[in-house]
Amino acid sequence: MSSSWNSSVSFSLFGESHGAAIGGVIDGLPPGIAIDMEAVRRQMERRKPGKEAFSTKRQEEDEVEIISGYFNGFTTGTPLAFLIKNKDQKSKDYESIKERIRPGHADFSAAFRYKGFQDYRGGGHFSGRLTAPLVFYGAIAKSFLKERFGIEVIAKIEGIAAIEDDSVRLEDMEETLAQLSKESSRFPVVNENKKAKMIQAIEEAAKSKDSLGGVIRCFATKVMPGLGDPFFDSLESKLAHMIFSVPAVKGLSFGKGFDLSNMKGSEANDSYYYDENQKILSQTNNNGGILGGISTGMPIDFKVAFKPTPSIAKKQKTLNLQKKENTELEITGRHDPCIVPRALPVVESCMAIVLFEQLAWKGME
Amino acid sequence: MSSSWNSSVSFSLFGESHGAAIGGVIDGLPPGIAIDMEAVRRQMERRKPGKEAFSTKRQEEDEVEIISGYFNGFTTGTPLAFLIKNKDQKSKDYESIKERIRPGHADFSAAFRYKGFQDYRGGGHFSGRLTAPLVFYGAIAKSFLKERFGIEVIAKIEGIAAIEDDSVRLEDMEETLAQLSKESSRFPVVNENKKAKMIQAIEEAAKSKDSLGGVIRCFATKVMPGLGDPFFDSLESKLAHMIFSVPAVKGLSFGKGFDLSNMKGSEANDSYYYDENQKILSQTNNNGGILGGISTGMPIDFKVAFKPTPSIAKKQKTLNLQKKENTELEITGRHDPCIVPRALPVVESCMAIVLFEQLAWKGME
Amino acid sequence: MSSSWNSSVSFSLFGESHGAAIGGVIDGLPPGIAIDMEAVRRQMERRKPGKEAFSTKRQEEDEVEIISGYFNGFTTGTPLAFLIKNKDQKSKDYESIKERIRPGHADFSAAFRYKGFQDYRGGGHFSGRLTAPLVFYGAIAKSFLKERFGIEVIAKIEGIAAIEDDSVRLEDMEETLAQLSKESSRFPVVNENKKAKMIQAIEEAAKSKDSLGGVIRCFATKVMPGLGDPFFDSLESKLAHMIFSVPAVKGLSFGKGFDLSNMKGSEANDSYYYDENQKILSQTNNNGGILGGISTGMPIDFKVAFKPTPSIAKKQKTLNLQKKENTELEITGRHDPCIVPRALPVVESCMAIVLFEQLAWKGME
Amino acid sequence: MSSSWNSSVSFSLFGESHGAAIGGVIDGLPPGIAIDMEAVRRQMERRKPGKEAFSTKRQEEDEVEIISGYFNGFTTGTPLAFLIKNKDQKSKDYESIKERIRPGHADFSAAFRYKGFQDYRGGGHFSGRLTAPLVFYGAIAKSFLKERFGIEVIAKIEGIAAIEDDSVRLEDMEETLAQLSKESSRFPVVNENKKAKMIQAIEEAAKSKDSLGGVIRCFATKVMPGLGDPFFDSLESKLAHMIFSVPAVKGLSFGKGFDLSNMKGSEANDSYYYDENQKILSQTNNNGGILGGISTGMPIDFKVAFKPTPSIAKKQKTLNLQKKENTELEITGRHDPCIVPRALPVVESCMAIVLFEQLAWKGME
Repeated sequence: MSSSWNSSVSFSLFGESHGAAIGGVIDGLPPGIAIDMEAVRRQMERRKPGKEAFSTKRQEEDEVEIISGYFNGFTTGTPLAFLIKNKDQKSKDYESIKERIRPGHADFSAAFRYKGFQDYRGGGHFSGRLTAPLVFYGAIAKSFLKERFGIEVIAKIEGIAAIEDDSVRLEDMEETLAQLSKESSRFPVVNENKKAKMIQAIEEAAKSKDSLGGVIRCFATKVMPGLGDPFFDSLESKLAHMIFSVPAVKGLSFGKGFDLSNMKGSEANDSYYYDENQKILSQTNNNGGILGGISTGMPIDFKVAFKPTPSIAKKQKTLNLQKKENTELEITGRHDPCIVPRALPVVESCMAIVLFEQLAWKGME
Repeated sequence: MSSSWNSSVSFSLFGESHGAAIGGVIDGLPPGIAIDMEAVRRQMERRKPGKEAFSTKRQEEDEVEIISGYFNGFTTGTPLAFLIKNKDQKSKDYESIKERIRPGHADFSAAFRYKGFQDYRGGGHFSGRLTAPLVFYGAIAKSFLKERFGIEVIAKIEGIAAIEDDSVRLEDMEETLAQLSKESSRFPVVNENKKAKMIQAIEEAAKSKDSLGGVIRCFATKVMPGLGDPFFDSLESKLAHMIFSVPAVKGLSFGKGFDLSNMKGSEANDSYYYDENQKILSQTNNNGGILGGISTGMPIDFKVAFKPTPSIAKKQKTLNLQKKENTELEITGRHDPCIVPRALPVVESCMAIVLFEQLAWKGME
Repeated sequence: MSSSWNSSVSFSLFGESHGAAIGGVIDGLPPGIAIDMEAVRRQMERRKPGKEAFSTKRQEEDEVEIISGYFNGFTTGTPLAFLIKNKDQKSKDYESIKERIRPGHADFSAAFRYKGFQDYRGGGHFSGRLTAPLVFYGAIAKSFLKERFGIEVIAKIEGIAAIEDDSVRLEDMEETLAQLSKESSRFPVVNENKKAKMIQAIEEAAKSKDSLGGVIRCFATKVMPGLGDPFFDSLESKLAHMIFSVPAVKGLSFGKGFDLSNMKGSEANDSYYYDENQKILSQTNNNGGILGGISTGMPIDFKVAFKPTPSIAKKQKTLNLQKKENTELEITGRHDPCIVPRALPVVESCMAIVLFEQLAWKGME
Repeated sequence: MSSSWNSSVSFSLFGESHGAAIGGVIDGLPPGIAIDMEAVRRQMERRKPGKEAFSTKRQEEDEVEIISGYFNGFTTGTPLAFLIKNKDQKSKDYESIKERIRPGHADFSAAFRYKGFQDYRGGGHFSGRLTAPLVFYGAIAKSFLKERFGIEVIAKIEGIAAIEDDSVRLEDMEETLAQLSKESSRFPVVNENKKAKMIQAIEEAAKSKDSLGGVIRCFATKVMPGLGDPFFDSLESKLAHMIFSVPAVKGLSFGKGFDLSNMKGSEANDSYYYDENQKILSQTNNNGGILGGISTGMPIDFKVAFKPTPSIAKKQKTLNLQKKENTELEITGRHDPCIVPRALPVVESCMAIVLFEQLAWKGME
């Protein structure tokens, strides 16, 4: 059941980058959700290739056509199916790849898994394009969380290659995030100098036929305490499951993450206290808003490591699985020198979907 | 369904640290597996508290009693249920905690999730003791993988606090791992000097009523290519889901992980080639043996960040949820100054279980 | 995942009739349910073999020991595990069966499924004794439904062999059911003459070393409209799934069931109307309270056909799978000449569990 | 997760009768299945309305458009998504229904379940038209079972209203079924006189603005022993789950079904024996080829009761949920006077899909 997500709301993802269309089915949505189509369009737009240096030149229209489950402007409660047609398919670009495994891609492992029957054109079902349906569902979830519960889901660029952005501080987190989500949705970074350097690094990588990776940090603020479960349905488990479904993700950490392993217990523990208004707070959020798999009421906060785009124009050594011999490869076509900016709405969608599932039916039954 | 893992083989985990027993049900095991009870005992032993400095003084017997699904020395194919009785319960130690939330524990979030009905004694269902049933299942899985498929699952300590072990090199990985698993199963580290420093650091933390965290690295060698799926059933997603179910885990990365985000595509891509014996290899394993969610045939390799044990004897600020006021807490009782060594078989179990599910029925039907 | 039921509340069933114990794990229960132990004991008692003619002489103690998930008299919200020890095991009685397949039992099919590794003693995991854990869970569900929502779940004997009870009429259904559940919980039949004939028929079957089957009808009254879903989560699908999990069940029908196929549309359709108090009713309930997989507000009403107990003392032809030859079999030991009366609480449990899952969390979140 | 079927192969069903399209996603198919498009077309054709007396006059084109998961004539192993466009939508026919609940339909229960947000046109997601995607998947499954394992899945009409067909005898079952599937796929009945009477009865019902129900019997022959599981994954449970997902089904029985409850144990038990070729057979198949939830090697054999089409032209009493008052209804539009013949491929699909899931990956891994 490779591409199905089964939870209180299930999601079935389908399509290949060079087939007729990609899409999804969302089953278990409550009835009566008014989809904010403008918010959906905005998120889809952020994921689309653009005109910036860091983006591929491919045109992907990404127009969503809702097939079912939506009637008179509201979800019906029965499965919401949708399609995104593939318009800009250039299958020829990919035909030689059949005999030249692209390093860093699923070409190699998929050939074993599917015994050669997979649609290999442009990565087929493994293409990053398959994140578009995820962003569609995520945009619905994100709007719902904000409107019904005031929860904000916002991702930012934490680093590109070795260039790290300044940290978002807990004490002015909400203002910073509001600022980031307002002004620079395609490249949200706190420190403008760092941003310039990041973009410059991407441009240089592109010129040298190479690519860069980076780190995205994602927050959900105003989450109530008590969401989640211990062990196999922990919020961290569910978020991790979905985040590692996103192509090119190789690391994930919550709160202080790997740095926590260098801290002492007395430093790492977040101490909760009542403030003067009897509101429960903690001065630190080292655990990223989750303890024992359950939300604490502090912002949920995680970081995701993206590897550099594996499709690069530089000559690479590889193998030809059909002829069983070593060979070389220069990937042509149009590819992102850095996928991180376009991955922002994807990461937000992962966060939003997992929280949505916890809250979709709250107060509905 | 908080504590149930549903896959081709399902696992239902139950119990509280101060109840009558903890245990589990494994449903979907193939018939005819001869459980290696000595291997099980060995893994259970590694998880148990010991006499070393880094370990709690609690006695946990951890004797496993199989209730069903095991007949004449083999699994029957119907559910295997087992119990581990709780013998060393000192409920009194924990009674005052009811009104003093332990920072860094699930006490706080669970109180909201369960509206006060949870068994709070010793963390209840959230206790690290609940990893014992996981280790029992994991030991069966680990033995099965080795015997039927030659797959070795081995975890080692990668770092304690800021002290990092030397790296395991790809070129002599199998010898290194064999060595580590042979000699030092309770504290496997490549560099003996680093090991001494790590143990010293733990002893010092214990003396200062504090605790340390660390990083575990886990390998599975001789895994065939083609295991796993894209997206929501990717090997990385499943491994991540299970790893983040383990209490105290705050980070996970595959292969070069977060360092990949600092590399260029031309450096990060693993280039596969045929060696002189027509065997497929790659000179690097930056992706940790998984591409597109599917195994590549290179060793699966991930790192897990553990936060420092939250139970420390130092005085901490906290709150009393019943009286709705701020208070202080000094945790008494016996606690590990560093949980990392005892977490080794837990991490191995996560790896083994996820691979076991992929292979349990192979060639059986 | 043979013996796991995965729904909003999951249930994992384990054990063999001649092992140490049978039991189950219920995961996903809301916190704060006060289990009515007297109601549980009553239902367990109805399932137990008794002293009546229609019952086996085996002693099954069926004492339930709760292992986890229950604290200070309430469910905690974490997994509730429980055991029922097997005390009256006479493995010798069954030893010869190993080479003589019992006709009508799972011995034959299980031998192929489990390649000979199954615990064959007394049917092992296929034993009717495995319905005891189901009745334990069902009793909790049944009490919950009554207390929180006023829903009554009541089963009655509709027929034994060819002797049919009088019909329960819609117009005085609630009084009739109240009467049946009060006076004759071990053999609830409307017409006392029919009851006498049924018992006589069972006694005669027992004398002639044979057995009888029968039909159970089960109602749930005061169910609100709107529970359930279309297609694969229809109430009928879920009820059917669980009912056909019960050993010896061979038929199931809702409302008028098979008789509906002989009716005209104008007769079969239940016409709803507003009564003088603006309450919605229908004069008939041919559809058994479910339309499109969703409850209508009329009583849920189904019939279950049980085959005669396959274990009979009469000589039967069968085969010896080990020697690969034909043989004969006379089953000794203690067996029910008619399982139907003891199956009443099992059928009620199936109904109660499926409705419980729909309602367990209503108003809780 | 109303319309998702989660098994080793999962199936997500979507669409409404008057929306843009209906369709499905099949996830978990093995790679390399060559879909027999002619066999698919044949099954889709049998489900389509035809020109016969027993069929609606609606035109449903039912052309299947495969969107993904199918490449160069074979399944790829990634999700197979498909659409069936809705061409003959006459929404106006249905507009008045909004305020007039159609008796016997889901209109009433769905209004409560979905709080008025459901697409009510033509039954929306509850329409019998949604069985078309099921038949598409079922046709693939049926062809696969025949080609790879020699398993034949064949359904026949067992009765229309009170007119019962002659019984298919075990001794010449395969010839009879071969005959039935060859000659009369749209109305397969053993006794030609009975067939004539059935068709006449349907014509008379149509003339009197009424409708009829009936019973379908379905067989799977040459099924190997050992498929299935005890309890919640029993073959009977899975078949029942899927069969009761089909609109208008109200009863299901295996083998002798309800008649078994009138038999004695000595009559009901199927006694297996070795024939002269050491083949295992039984002279009866009262249990319908399943014992303990697992196939016995005898043909799987069940009967399904369909209620009469609820849409009839006769005037009916009903209620107006908007005005909260009683009213009357005469349903116009084109409706089947008897749905049974068109349900044959739907029932076959249920059988085929459940068996397919057991066997799809056999010998593939």
